[in-house]
Amino acid sequence: MDKKTASTQKIILTGDRPTGPLHLGHYIGSLKNRVKLQNECQQFIIIADMQALTDHAENPELVQKNVLQLGLDYLAVGLDPKVSTIFIQSLVPEIFELMMYYLNLVTVARLERNPTVKDEMKQKGFGKRVPAGFLVYPISQAADITAFKANLVPVGADQVPVIEQVNEVVRAFNRIYKTDALVEAQALVSDVPRLSGLEGKAKMSKSLENCIYLSDSTDDVKKKVFEMHTDPGHIHAKDPGKTEGNVVFEYLDAFGTDKKKITELKGQYEQGGLGDVIVKNYLVEVLEELLMPIREKRREAAKDPTQVMKMLKQGTGRAREAAAQTLKDVREAMGLIY
Amino acid sequence: MDKKTASTQKIILTGDRPTGPLHLGHYIGSLKNRVKLQNECQQFIIIADMQALTDHAENPELVQKNVLQLGLDYLAVGLDPKVSTIFIQSLVPEIFELMMYYLNLVTVARLERNPTVKDEMKQKGFGKRVPAGFLVYPISQAADITAFKANLVPVGADQVPVIEQVNEVVRAFNRIYKTDALVEAQALVSDVPRLSGLEGKAKMSKSLENCIYLSDSTDDVKKKVFEMHTDPGHIHAKDPGKTEGNVVFEYLDAFGTDKKKITELKGQYEQGGLGDVIVKNYLVEVLEELLMPIREKRREAAKDPTQVMKMLKQGTGRAREAAAQTLKDVREAMGLIY
Repeated sequence: MDKKTASTQKIILTGDRPTGPLHLGHYIGSLKNRVKLQNECQQFIIIADMQALTDHAENPELVQKNVLQLGLDYLAVGLDPKVSTIFIQSLVPEIFELMMYYLNLVTVARLERNPTVKDEMKQKGFGKRVPAGFLVYPISQAADITAFKANLVPVGADQVPVIEQVNEVVRAFNRIYKTDALVEAQALVSDVPRLSGLEGKAKMSKSLENCIYLSDSTDDVKKKVFEMHTDPGHIHAKDPGKTEGNVVFEYLDAFGTDKKKITELKGQYEQGGLGDVIVKNYLVEVLEELLMPIREKRREAAKDPTQVMKMLKQGTGRAREAAAQTLKDVREAMGLIY
Repeated sequence: MDKKTASTQKIILTGDRPTGPLHLGHYIGSLKNRVKLQNECQQFIIIADMQALTDHAENPELVQKNVLQLGLDYLAVGLDPKVSTIFIQSLVPEIFELMMYYLNLVTVARLERNPTVKDEMKQKGFGKRVPAGFLVYPISQAADITAFKANLVPVGADQVPVIEQVNEVVRAFNRIYKTDALVEAQALVSDVPRLSGLEGKAKMSKSLENCIYLSDSTDDVKKKVFEMHTDPGHIHAKDPGKTEGNVVFEYLDAFGTDKKKITELKGQYEQGGLGDVIVKNYLVEVLEELLMPIREKRREAAKDPTQVMKMLKQGTGRAREAAAQTLKDVREAMGLIY
């Protein structure tokens, strides 16, 4: 991407649901990129508490308490609240009003056909008991994205149908009300493969308890690395081992900076004569190099939670200004001015 | 109802969708009662422009322009904006935020089972193409009603299932969040039978073009009364005629104040010897007695539309204060405080 074009034109919407601490999978899959992009694009980062409630309605405390935790994770990895606009979704009511207008432009049948929503409904075992708020969450996302006229939305491949549906709403609105008030968004699908969990069978995911969190202590990291899946055929140090499908090497590839050393280690491991303990100790070293400054920044920021919340509210204020402008454009396009 | 209890405890939510001028059916079915109740209860009157968009999304101009017209009709019949809180729904964003929380407490299956919504979907011929906004409108109404902690909602019998669904939301919210922040509403079903349209076959309804509007001129009223269905067997003045199922007599019963005279006319008509023209002229007289002051007040108010909109915005300001308090209670109950 041409940096100049990006800095003048690209508006990103990205963010997380505040349902738990962020882990290494988040870091490599999106946070790292956000830190890079914040200086190249205008970046809005949504703490999607309202969306988190669509499947945590019975547990709002969990959502509430994780807003601060998410703010701390963001600061810890180097997101700069002066550069990126970090905001709390439920404090931007303009988004909900936009959603009201968009709900009239989408049929129930179309929502029920959304493959992402269908899959997630199956995963969550909702069956016939899917809450209305969950079914309509792509429309809520349409409001999140269009509120900031975002034209770039980083997503996993599984979320692409949601962005397609968002763009259908955009096109319907612009067509019906003869306007260009809303902007289509491009799904920026990550080319980083999703990080495996510790056991190597599934992707890293909070619900599977197979994560290394950004807020984990050094001891936690050591303990978890030593629980990691390697090559089950590599019993003695002298045995030749596989590095493919070996979680320790997957992590070294993802997080190590000394590529030469990693290549050498792989060679030794495959040939035989390199024990898991040595490789794991090196991985701990690599992860600690990444996590130590993150942990330190987090610890610093956590000393003054009030200040962190204040920073989130300042971001929310800036987000509201942008969303209010879009809402004004939307109401003008509809002629809904009194 | 005990007047004292009412004045201290009863909170009414009522209102109309701004999709066209109000007619005599509205007057006899609800407006007359609102004028009476405004001094007995706390009354919130919603100009439901947002709800009107759920089936008029392609025609927001119609909705926009009818907001002023509805305000004029309200003033004309004697609703006092200093006593009743008349407000524009789309300018109370607190309502939309409440709706977001409620959407998570209702399943899609439950919404699809709502008999009122099912009937209306059939009437409107939506089929599989029902807009999401239309399906969820009972949840939008839950937000309208609970925002003002209204405990009394005047409705037609066909709308009772909507109030039942509203109360389900109230109970679910209060149960899940262990609170009494939301108040159940009682459906106040009108005992006035719905007024027939001019042709006598269906109820008075804008879409059937069988209405006498509150804003109709004297000439319009005369013309429409003389088009009215009487007894098709009553061909000559001397013939005996039926007063049952005779629209002219239905209207005399509904709007006439001189009950004795009406009883006499009925007797003569049934016996034979009373022509339709005489009865119709008398109905014109009766309606003009009702409509002349309404028309005059409307004409006065219409001279300064800016002032009317200002009055609606003042009401909206008062409504927002009340809704903001409820929203605060709701967020506190959920622990969603930052």
